[in-house]
Amino acid sequence: MKVTLERNHLLKSLSHVHRVVERRNTYPILANVLFKAADDKVELRATDLDIEVTESVPAMVSTPGTTTVPAHTLYEIVRKLSDGAEVRLETDGGENMVLTSGRSRFNLACLSPDSFPDLKSGAFGHEFTMPASALRELIERTQFAISNEETRYYLNGIYFHTVDITGTGTVLRAVATDGHRMARAEIDAPEGAKGMPGIIVPKKTVGEVQKLLDGADGDVSVEVSDTKIRFTVGSVVLLSKLIEGTFPDYDRVTPKNNDKQMNVDRASFAIAVDRVSTIASDRGGKAVKLQAKDGLLELSVTNPDHGTASEELAVEFDTDGFEIGFNARYLLDIIGQIRSESAVFMFNDAGSPTLVKDDGETRALYVLMPMRV
Amino acid sequence: MKVTLERNHLLKSLSHVHRVVERRNTYPILANVLFKAADDKVELRATDLDIEVTESVPAMVSTPGTTTVPAHTLYEIVRKLSDGAEVRLETDGGENMVLTSGRSRFNLACLSPDSFPDLKSGAFGHEFTMPASALRELIERTQFAISNEETRYYLNGIYFHTVDITGTGTVLRAVATDGHRMARAEIDAPEGAKGMPGIIVPKKTVGEVQKLLDGADGDVSVEVSDTKIRFTVGSVVLLSKLIEGTFPDYDRVTPKNNDKQMNVDRASFAIAVDRVSTIASDRGGKAVKLQAKDGLLELSVTNPDHGTASEELAVEFDTDGFEIGFNARYLLDIIGQIRSESAVFMFNDAGSPTLVKDDGETRALYVLMPMRV
Repeated sequence: MKVTLERNHLLKSLSHVHRVVERRNTYPILANVLFKAADDKVELRATDLDIEVTESVPAMVSTPGTTTVPAHTLYEIVRKLSDGAEVRLETDGGENMVLTSGRSRFNLACLSPDSFPDLKSGAFGHEFTMPASALRELIERTQFAISNEETRYYLNGIYFHTVDITGTGTVLRAVATDGHRMARAEIDAPEGAKGMPGIIVPKKTVGEVQKLLDGADGDVSVEVSDTKIRFTVGSVVLLSKLIEGTFPDYDRVTPKNNDKQMNVDRASFAIAVDRVSTIASDRGGKAVKLQAKDGLLELSVTNPDHGTASEELAVEFDTDGFEIGFNARYLLDIIGQIRSESAVFMFNDAGSPTLVKDDGETRALYVLMPMRV
Repeated sequence: MKVTLERNHLLKSLSHVHRVVERRNTYPILANVLFKAADDKVELRATDLDIEVTESVPAMVSTPGTTTVPAHTLYEIVRKLSDGAEVRLETDGGENMVLTSGRSRFNLACLSPDSFPDLKSGAFGHEFTMPASALRELIERTQFAISNEETRYYLNGIYFHTVDITGTGTVLRAVATDGHRMARAEIDAPEGAKGMPGIIVPKKTVGEVQKLLDGADGDVSVEVSDTKIRFTVGSVVLLSKLIEGTFPDYDRVTPKNNDKQMNVDRASFAIAVDRVSTIASDRGGKAVKLQAKDGLLELSVTNPDHGTASEELAVEFDTDGFEIGFNARYLLDIIGQIRSESAVFMFNDAGSPTLVKDDGETRALYVLMPMRV
């Protein structure tokens, strides 16, 4: 292999593919990025056996060929080369790749491309495109609620599926929950998505896709099978395994008859929760108590180790005397998702899930389990 | 105690004093900040038994008194109060302090001020003032070389002392070393410093003083005894224990007869060292080899795990064939201290300390031990 590339092109592609490479690997080949040079381009590929990212870079290919080199080291080297520099990569067919650029020269240990794993995609039964902004929105609105508990592996991702809603049509819905809170967002189902199987996209994949979408405009192409998903964002292709398992029936825990409505200014509420939770600690007092009295809402935290904190806030709420407690961190996460000036809380009672949503038309909603206070 | 303060005044002082408070404390009282309210001001004080920071804040004192409350919690609360808000602090003489501000109310557990430790200053034999910028300079130029090895506790700080230099007069000199590299900086000795004992100021104190000096102009007052040092920066007073021990005779390891001079462009050299050291790792190849040949300097790193890297650089150096190796990290630290466009290296041989300094007149110099390559 003998190729010449523009440093900035190479850096951009490496920055996309090297991220999936884990820092510690059981198999040395997994630390490497695969180079395939042919036909005026170099294809770069990296994988962690769950996700595979591929991207092509324009190049002057003098001798086609293929090899693998340490991904993070190569990324660091290219990052430190001068802006706009020319980079030459050359293998002698043996165990080394020589990188030269200006007066710098690196000799990197290669591994044979023969053993580089291939995450076979199989056939995709469903294929659709959607605006990058729509996918970004679905992820942003739900990602925070993904569970990190490995025992409930089927909650370690975002559940995407289509739902037929009478009067609205088919929507593509994203749901994430960790059992304490749930986030749900939806968009009109893109053509081709209807009838796709419900799939759970793993947290790491969600994060990688989000980084690829960062700043992207235009469309994203999505292909789905029972076990895999493939995203194509511009010149980058990300193939990922799906989580095998059954996502719980979230609809069952989505409150339908919560009739006590409270409207509160989002910004003031967030500041007040943050302030009173200052005296919370891991050992005690993680719960913020909300209490309605005389047209005001009192937020309070009691921590046996530190003391107490309380704050009053003007709200629209007519169920005087109502009391409920929430985990301060979860409450802040959800209030941070609200985009309208005022947030709407729909309560049932102190022991039942509470619904939180934007004021006015919205395609997202949040459910929060209360804590005993 | 019953006082009213301006939130921004209180926050600024708390930000100065709370930093010395350790996150974990054997004695609960050490987690607290001492409040003493009298005569239109509140004195705040915190200590870790090695450093004590004191500052007074203007206040409306309705009832004089004294108490102690958790420093970090209070700092976090005050930080989250609105800009310019009024803060009322009130104790009932018992175990609580009530903080109210706007619609927020906090109840904080107090501890009796009686057991609050007092880091007795004793008598200071030497007292002088110097511009804040001069002290900042002495610290900035030497701090990086302070040793973290607890076994050589006498290297865990900056050694300040005065030296009489024929023709120049008396200088105040700061020296730090970890046995691998040494940094030395000096200024004309302030009046009153001459004849002061050589003192070792601990690393944590150096860091705290540096933060207090950040953005400070005007003068700093310094008082020194055999066991303590006291800095007064504006309204903040920092009292610290000194490290008891003997600083090694650094003059003995400062090369005097290094006659092989190399001049190199600082920025290009730093980039080249950073670049070739990309393939260095903790396990091997931490050394950068410098080799002079044909009017060029070749920098190279060999790491059995990763490969090799090399780069050539134009230098002014006439000892063709000279070779020497340095720890890449240490070399970058020192080159980062050079302020002139070109850096001057004075070599003896591959096994002897190398001197590095600014090109032209300077009051700082650096010594670097070589590594075998």
